[in-house]
Amino acid sequence: MIKFQAEIDVMPKKEILDPQGKAVTGSMKNLGLAEIQNVRIGKHITLEIEAESEAAATDKVDEACKNLLANLIMESYSFTLRQA
Amino acid sequence: MIKFQAEIDVMPKKEILDPQGKAVTGSMKNLGLAEIQNVRIGKHITLEIEAESEAAATDKVDEACKNLLANLIMESYSFTLRQA
Repeated sequence: MIKFQAEIDVMPKKEILDPQGKAVTGSMKNLGLAEIQNVRIGKHITLEIEAESEAAATDKVDEACKNLLANLIMESYSFTLRQA
Repeated sequence: MIKFQAEIDVMPKKEILDPQGKAVTGSMKNLGLAEIQNVRIGKHITLEIEAESEAAATDKVDEACKNLLANLIMESYSFTLRQA
């Protein structure tokens, strides 16, 4: 078995309002950082996975994203794998 | 002015317990994904910034992370910039 480390990003879909990001964009102005715009906030998830191959690990991480980590109605996800 | 897109990861520090990650690690087992271990959950933030140079944009994003996006007592951050 090979050990992999996955780095997953789960973000609100483009067409979905992100009220937390909107609020943070507004706060940037008060901090003197008005040149920062369009803040969007999602999740970053790291995990370790043991699998027989990178393809098998990819399938498992994909399954974890679809079934647990992301809400596919409102969020999209992407990830990278590297050998740990 | 040049427009940049920043991708920021804010993660709980290694020595800090991550109860949300622990709970998700436990749920993996119930989903038939017991080969997934050590889930840690943080934030992924994207934003746009206008600056005169990449160095200036880096400074501003660093300031935003330190002052607003990350809690440096419990979290660490990293980011990449690319021209938008």
